[in-house]
Amino acid sequence: MTLAFQDWASAHQLRFEDVLKQWLPPSDVAPQRLHQAMRYSVLDGGKRVRPLLAFAAGELVGAELERVNYAAAAVELIHAYSLVHDDMPCMDDDVLRRGKPTCHVQFDEATALLVGDSLQTLAFHFLSDPVLSDHPLRQIAMVRLLAQASGSRGMAGGQAIDLDSVGKQLSVTELEFMHIHKTGALIRAAVLLGANCGEASEESLARLDHFAKCVGLAFQVVDDILDAEADTATLGKTAGKDADNDKPTYVTLLGVVAAKKMAADLHREALNTLADLGAPAQRLRELADFIVLRKF
Amino acid sequence: MTLAFQDWASAHQLRFEDVLKQWLPPSDVAPQRLHQAMRYSVLDGGKRVRPLLAFAAGELVGAELERVNYAAAAVELIHAYSLVHDDMPCMDDDVLRRGKPTCHVQFDEATALLVGDSLQTLAFHFLSDPVLSDHPLRQIAMVRLLAQASGSRGMAGGQAIDLDSVGKQLSVTELEFMHIHKTGALIRAAVLLGANCGEASEESLARLDHFAKCVGLAFQVVDDILDAEADTATLGKTAGKDADNDKPTYVTLLGVVAAKKMAADLHREALNTLADLGAPAQRLRELADFIVLRKF
Repeated sequence: MTLAFQDWASAHQLRFEDVLKQWLPPSDVAPQRLHQAMRYSVLDGGKRVRPLLAFAAGELVGAELERVNYAAAAVELIHAYSLVHDDMPCMDDDVLRRGKPTCHVQFDEATALLVGDSLQTLAFHFLSDPVLSDHPLRQIAMVRLLAQASGSRGMAGGQAIDLDSVGKQLSVTELEFMHIHKTGALIRAAVLLGANCGEASEESLARLDHFAKCVGLAFQVVDDILDAEADTATLGKTAGKDADNDKPTYVTLLGVVAAKKMAADLHREALNTLADLGAPAQRLRELADFIVLRKF
Repeated sequence: MTLAFQDWASAHQLRFEDVLKQWLPPSDVAPQRLHQAMRYSVLDGGKRVRPLLAFAAGELVGAELERVNYAAAAVELIHAYSLVHDDMPCMDDDVLRRGKPTCHVQFDEATALLVGDSLQTLAFHFLSDPVLSDHPLRQIAMVRLLAQASGSRGMAGGQAIDLDSVGKQLSVTELEFMHIHKTGALIRAAVLLGANCGEASEESLARLDHFAKCVGLAFQVVDDILDAEADTATLGKTAGKDADNDKPTYVTLLGVVAAKKMAADLHREALNTLADLGAPAQRLRELADFIVLRKF
């Protein structure tokens, strides 16, 4: 019998938490304070949306779970590093993340800087693990894919555009360009890296790519809606932050009604993209549902 | 006829500057300000000691220069990112680097944070370039080597230990542990990555490894001596900074005379390690001389 989605997701979340606990540097190994702060910033938190996408894509292509763990961990550490740096005073200056004090509040700014730096490095360390190396050429391409998704023409570039956009009037096209980089690139990497852990046809990869782009953008639209509507306690991070910071969002640009329609359209398109892939794509469909329908 | 060392080094420095100019993201491509700041932080500056070590190690093993360019660029970008982040107010709070305002002064703190993040990513992008991929398994090992050298158990870990050591009395062993991580790991990576671009025997790699460890530590001892003795104009960065910050150095721990003897001993050991490798190791020997005898 197939597990209900929530049970499937919880099982992976719990299992993956243990993987991260084992793989992150132990807090009693020097430099202890840095390692403690790295563990603090990664463990016990987050919905693990990107790892779940990697696991679901891996399932679709029959990948070995142990391999997908490395891909999922690499993507999650890039995500975690970006949160730690984003929260710093010179960026978003946020004090709360996942219901806990942010890294620079709990430790200090210099440590938070090094935590982000070290988590990024560790992502590439995981992705170059020999366990992933049955297809070394493909593995190199995976390293390159993660680098492209994370750098100045991917996630970090999206952050830079975001910074430059404060107080500016963006068009929907410009906002989309920003989010395709800032959030979309890494979500796409999660799906494609998961699929590359198994044997995916070119056609499947192309479908997954389009699916991931739709889901990535939907994720951000929903984020903007939640930020505008939710309160801080539900969200586990400071709510209303974007509007307060005078940042353009889908809600400020389109209004809540049109933003919700946009999320629904992207959701439908994501599901249509997977229509031919049948039962093995079930978890990916459910993740698309989860991302669009989530309340936090 | 063999070029004099200074001519060899200058030729590589000039050529490599062009490589970096071509390979760094153009400043007219979005996000422009981030790309401008990345170019500002990497180009027109630095002695390129790590790339020169990679080129010299590549020469020793007959590596194709084009391949070594990727290894050298990867290591140099890791070094450049660490300088940008180090100079930030929450770390060393330095305003001058290579005779120019530091990145966060010339641009702003948020941009400097993203510049460092993006330069690190770009390092792994370069190292996963298909041009390096005649030996894909070896290339994956090179990615892993750079990750190990850069992360919390390498360079970034050394920074963390450095931060924790401010105002503390360290033993020489503890200071050495810090510098083996902070400076030594990346210098070792430069030599080994250069050698891995060609065909190096296990024995040569072991020798190069020991050579790099000696040179890496000598580099730091000389840095401490220069910081204590030189003035800001000669150094191109703020002099006397370490003593002002109450940081332990080889000079504060051993005194100038003993620190100079230590540098000379490490220099001799580095040269002895290469004694059997003959003429092809000439540039590595000359680099060891340069690193120990430099005045800036």
